[in-house]
Amino acid sequence: MHFNISAPDLNFVPTLQAELDQKTKPLHSLGRLESLALQIGLVQKTLKPRIERPSLLVFAADHGIARAGVSPYPQSVTGAMVRNFSQGGAAINVLTRELGWDLHLINAGTLEPTPWPSVQDRRLGPGTRNMLNEAAMSAEELEQALKAGADSVRALKADGCNTVAFGEMGIGNSSSAALLIHCLCDIPLQDAVSRGAGCDDEQLRNKKGCLEQVLSKHGRIKDPMEALRVFGGFELAMIAGATLAAAEERMLILVDGLIASAAVLVAVKFCPEVKTYLIFAHRSAAAGHAALLQHLEVAPLLDLQMRLGEGTGAALALPLLRSAAAILSEMATFASAEVAGPGPS
Amino acid sequence: MHFNISAPDLNFVPTLQAELDQKTKPLHSLGRLESLALQIGLVQKTLKPRIERPSLLVFAADHGIARAGVSPYPQSVTGAMVRNFSQGGAAINVLTRELGWDLHLINAGTLEPTPWPSVQDRRLGPGTRNMLNEAAMSAEELEQALKAGADSVRALKADGCNTVAFGEMGIGNSSSAALLIHCLCDIPLQDAVSRGAGCDDEQLRNKKGCLEQVLSKHGRIKDPMEALRVFGGFELAMIAGATLAAAEERMLILVDGLIASAAVLVAVKFCPEVKTYLIFAHRSAAAGHAALLQHLEVAPLLDLQMRLGEGTGAALALPLLRSAAAILSEMATFASAEVAGPGPS
Repeated sequence: MHFNISAPDLNFVPTLQAELDQKTKPLHSLGRLESLALQIGLVQKTLKPRIERPSLLVFAADHGIARAGVSPYPQSVTGAMVRNFSQGGAAINVLTRELGWDLHLINAGTLEPTPWPSVQDRRLGPGTRNMLNEAAMSAEELEQALKAGADSVRALKADGCNTVAFGEMGIGNSSSAALLIHCLCDIPLQDAVSRGAGCDDEQLRNKKGCLEQVLSKHGRIKDPMEALRVFGGFELAMIAGATLAAAEERMLILVDGLIASAAVLVAVKFCPEVKTYLIFAHRSAAAGHAALLQHLEVAPLLDLQMRLGEGTGAALALPLLRSAAAILSEMATFASAEVAGPGPS
Repeated sequence: MHFNISAPDLNFVPTLQAELDQKTKPLHSLGRLESLALQIGLVQKTLKPRIERPSLLVFAADHGIARAGVSPYPQSVTGAMVRNFSQGGAAINVLTRELGWDLHLINAGTLEPTPWPSVQDRRLGPGTRNMLNEAAMSAEELEQALKAGADSVRALKADGCNTVAFGEMGIGNSSSAALLIHCLCDIPLQDAVSRGAGCDDEQLRNKKGCLEQVLSKHGRIKDPMEALRVFGGFELAMIAGATLAAAEERMLILVDGLIASAAVLVAVKFCPEVKTYLIFAHRSAAAGHAALLQHLEVAPLLDLQMRLGEGTGAALALPLLRSAAAILSEMATFASAEVAGPGPS
């Protein structure tokens, strides 16, 4: 799969910075809101940026590894939560309604079909294979998943959307995230494994043992797409494809917590220019996320000790993007408002 | 001035916690959004809290101490910024528009009158007296300012508002804030003095010298209302009165950065029950604010290296309040959504 991604035109930075510095406020006094405004203006190449039709896509899938007991929740919860999403009762429904996102639900491959309203069927199979025994996906399945994710984003772009975020649901997917983070960054497996939806100490030891077995079978794969194929999941591969397509389309990408970040990590390792389009929304309380953010040399906007997934952290950061864009687009300058700058009265 | 303030009924906490724990998410996985939901539910004493007509009040006033050169900006900037507010061009205009606040502009006492649309005239004089020579306010002025602040909030409450925030504008008011923080907390003056709107190193040394002179004249006043009278400003006194009235009316109070927090500090020291109604919105980059937050044993929601004032930090946190309230009010439970909890599949 080919993506034609280039970084925004950095020659526009001084123009943006000069505009921000003329706004009626002490220099740099809006802190990270100003650097965010600069990034948004740069990606959209305008002094009047706007967040248009922000869309949050939740990809759901099951994982063969879940049968090894890496999660305290039964695998059926993935499908049950997709039903909950379709009924509007989950955290991501509440937050996207409240904050003005368009929410899109995509079945990437759950155990059973999910024939409920508003769930798009991109089901590639009844979950991935168990990576304890074999690669999670075939090369063809990976390709299909990347394409499905990319197609979703291109359809949104055609519809006038310029800002996206990706969430996920999949019992067992924190195991995939741990392996991707361990393999693609220099982070020890012990530090990359989280408690997922709520492992106790014994369950966590079991999970780490499982993942060590997976690693001794497949090795520490360094190629991002091959690591995604062997250790990933259908929903993670769709997020990676969606991220690459969004960068290609020059859209703003709000990145959620541990699992979504692991998928985005694959996209960044595959094509480093992707990073220019990313805005990391929050620091997850899940083990491994802080280390991953540090590896990527990024500082997220929020730190609220959340670890739910579904895209909830990304959802919460949208008002900050809108605010930053509005500061650049709408604030008066010292000249236009006839306000004196620093100096004698 | 008398305020009849009592803390919310803590017997309601277990009911709220049980409701949050039944929502379709791993236990406690929404982190601070859950503790915020709990506080909101407690203040409103309901399992279905709502943020109604959120109102942000910006109080503006001038300060006698500004004539000693404690700020790099001329005193005329206070009035010029009030005009900018009335024209909709300042940061607080942009943010309140974007995030759904009702914005109220109140002239508490600027050098010159501000006869512009939408500016309420509560002007107590042409700025305070210079505290290098005498107390900033008389006892009667303090009383009038507290009452004016309280009246503003009571009018909003009568109008159906249940959530407020207070911003400020006043060249010189970071000097008042530094003295209040130094006197009412155990924080050395050196650590409480910030660069305000942008002092350079020499201006900062001059400012510290000025404030030491003020202290040697008046002493380290420990009584909160007396400290407010001697070191404060009209806008700070109105914010203190508004905060006390909002707590009396059982409203949620989003607290902004350094200057607003110093005024709120007076209210908390005057009546500790006020604290139950406070939600600290952000950690300012201005020196002294982190120490003040630590003294109050509170952790703010946001940390975006902002130091603008006007209520901008408080404005940005509103979507988090709305989101937390909606999580409690609207999310499905495991039972209602028929989703299995942790356990064997």
